[in-house]
Amino acid sequence: MPMPYSFSRLGQKLTAPSGIVGLMDDLGRAMTVEPDMYMLGGGNPAAVPEMQALWRERMAKLLHEEGEAFDRMLVNYDPPQGQPQFVRALAGLLRREFGWAVDPDNIAVTNGGQTAFFFLFNLLAGDFGGGRHRKILLPLAPEYIGYADQGVDDRLFVSCQPHIDWPLTQAARIFKYRVDFDAVETALRDEDIAAMAVSRPTNPTGNVLTDDEVERLAGLAEARGIPLIIDNAYGAPFPGVIFTDARPFWTPNTILTFSLSKLGLPGTRTAFVVAPREIASAVSSMTAIIGLANGNIGQRLVHPFVENGRLLELGRTILRPFYESRGRQTQKWVHEFMVEKGVDYGLHASEGAFFHWIWFRKLKVTTGELYERLKRRKVLVVPGEYFFFGLREDWAHRHECIRVNFSGPPNAVREGLRLIADEAAQCQE
Amino acid sequence: MPMPYSFSRLGQKLTAPSGIVGLMDDLGRAMTVEPDMYMLGGGNPAAVPEMQALWRERMAKLLHEEGEAFDRMLVNYDPPQGQPQFVRALAGLLRREFGWAVDPDNIAVTNGGQTAFFFLFNLLAGDFGGGRHRKILLPLAPEYIGYADQGVDDRLFVSCQPHIDWPLTQAARIFKYRVDFDAVETALRDEDIAAMAVSRPTNPTGNVLTDDEVERLAGLAEARGIPLIIDNAYGAPFPGVIFTDARPFWTPNTILTFSLSKLGLPGTRTAFVVAPREIASAVSSMTAIIGLANGNIGQRLVHPFVENGRLLELGRTILRPFYESRGRQTQKWVHEFMVEKGVDYGLHASEGAFFHWIWFRKLKVTTGELYERLKRRKVLVVPGEYFFFGLREDWAHRHECIRVNFSGPPNAVREGLRLIADEAAQCQE
Repeated sequence: MPMPYSFSRLGQKLTAPSGIVGLMDDLGRAMTVEPDMYMLGGGNPAAVPEMQALWRERMAKLLHEEGEAFDRMLVNYDPPQGQPQFVRALAGLLRREFGWAVDPDNIAVTNGGQTAFFFLFNLLAGDFGGGRHRKILLPLAPEYIGYADQGVDDRLFVSCQPHIDWPLTQAARIFKYRVDFDAVETALRDEDIAAMAVSRPTNPTGNVLTDDEVERLAGLAEARGIPLIIDNAYGAPFPGVIFTDARPFWTPNTILTFSLSKLGLPGTRTAFVVAPREIASAVSSMTAIIGLANGNIGQRLVHPFVENGRLLELGRTILRPFYESRGRQTQKWVHEFMVEKGVDYGLHASEGAFFHWIWFRKLKVTTGELYERLKRRKVLVVPGEYFFFGLREDWAHRHECIRVNFSGPPNAVREGLRLIADEAAQCQE
Repeated sequence: MPMPYSFSRLGQKLTAPSGIVGLMDDLGRAMTVEPDMYMLGGGNPAAVPEMQALWRERMAKLLHEEGEAFDRMLVNYDPPQGQPQFVRALAGLLRREFGWAVDPDNIAVTNGGQTAFFFLFNLLAGDFGGGRHRKILLPLAPEYIGYADQGVDDRLFVSCQPHIDWPLTQAARIFKYRVDFDAVETALRDEDIAAMAVSRPTNPTGNVLTDDEVERLAGLAEARGIPLIIDNAYGAPFPGVIFTDARPFWTPNTILTFSLSKLGLPGTRTAFVVAPREIASAVSSMTAIIGLANGNIGQRLVHPFVENGRLLELGRTILRPFYESRGRQTQKWVHEFMVEKGVDYGLHASEGAFFHWIWFRKLKVTTGELYERLKRRKVLVVPGEYFFFGLREDWAHRHECIRVNFSGPPNAVREGLRLIADEAAQCQE
């Protein structure tokens, strides 16, 4: 019989029940062994036919037309930084298209964006010795659930309540979060902040920080000598699931992360960090020590599209139209069903990514409880509570929102939304 | 201009110059941008034609004959534990073929073996609060370089000097390390040990712990209520790069790791942990929090061979004959060149993996210095110093050995060995 084992403090922290573990578990189960769930949870991208055809075609080419490239891709370890030719091509693309002063030394590949953030957060913040603990400031909560448990050090995050523009448009019950710069400046003054981080578009809300907001945050970071980290997992310039005219942003003091997941390649676990040289180099070291090397396949699949710049068109020509149209369609269903059931709700402006963020304004249960009720009705969503980590004060609003992934099959999303409205109506004051 | 950034204690630790970072860097460079190096460093597997044909055929099948399996592999996140069907198939294989009481709950997939060890070491050992720090005991140094820097906590490892059987056979100047059980029992008594770990075959030496040694270690672990971790990256039952009749070993208290890398798939970053349920579950949680999910491609490529058991034949029929014959051939060259140059050397018994471990008995420089000299002559090896971490006392022997990877093109390996003998002769007392 195996004996009871004890875990280290870090082990206990990384294995405690957490939002992301439950989320990935529910997601994985729904995608594989419970296909009858209405899957509006998780962050799985849609099966976009044009993208799938593209990756098939590309793999067939690697396999049948490019000599030994396929064999080398499987049998050789890349350097921890990433494949040198690929890294050079990516730096070249960013230089050429955006004029950013990015060299290969500013880039590090990681096994997916989640890993990039584990490295960056724990590199820049946490225990600095002598009792000093530095933190990551999230200027606008709610923010990505996957960050919440990544600190090796306890209490890694400080986050700020945003302003809520409500109603943004009266008729459609749309609202939008805006950075509360007073709160951000207060946090920067009160806490020992090592870096600021934002996802843009924001996961979970689909909010896109305006160019002005990003510039002001970058200015504050610059002034304090700390980096601003922008998570572009859904954003600009690729994958480009962004429905506003937000400009891709970079400064020498900004850390950008990009990922292939929302181009339809989450199964390859491939992301890129663009950062000041010493930080990119640190990320490569962490890859070597923690994981030896990165998966090669994602890099090889997109390599020619990085060389010829087509990577930047995929968002504009395929992904943005696809998700924007899905988003509009599902938004109509949200309005239709909520009104039909008499739910007092708000819907965050859908500016990017593929989530709707629904605010139940008179819920008498927490969204955690709503989540459980919906699960019993075969609908998976993500309760909003998980996205408000790092707030210094409690906030009723954090118990009133859910995240809904609208990228699944439209019929399933529609039926899921109908059941959500029905259940929310029953849970209303 | 980017500003100078400061790194956390953990960040500093994970980015300090380390053996594995240098190793992976040299390896990656030699595999990509410096193809004129004689590459006898690193742990890259050989390009084995039968294996490459197999993976090509398998990918072609996924692409052209299995409906949407290829698309799903790329576009869907697996659960953090691994793909449920795959995990079930692997548990079934181990149960059926070896009678091990292994359920799907005892398995966790990770993004490569290195990541599995980062998770396991930091889960089981390190800071336990209240001033308690538990350690990992390596019963036989030298041990795998890649473990050395993985501790989030400082000084994670304690290792034991082995007995050296020298000469094992006088004529051929062969030696073999054997576990010094007195030293192991002393370490278990003196230190707060959380687990023992061995690689089998040992990387770097090609040593294969005997069945008796493994059983004694398992008995000691059992008696102290700690797990024994066996790293089968090169071992039994797969990939099976093992030239003795060592039995695959498992008990309910043993943690096994396996990897697809030495089957020719390092580019997929895929490994498996077989462990007591609570440990396998902890590893899955760590995957979710640190990396969200695993790469899917390795699992899908080998899935049918796990179902039909062919996975276990690949070692016996392809890999063992291939590497054993390479090993014998290159061993002859070692003897030939060392004798020719008058080097006083020993060669560790080649019982598995694809490394020769050469002992220079009269070296007047460290092997770190020898490594630098060889690099200037375009030969990459790994200096032995890196593999002796965790020893409580210094040991002259640790500066006298190098690891040579013999899996590369035979002509390059031959020329590399010739240059090594020549350089070693010049560095001899």
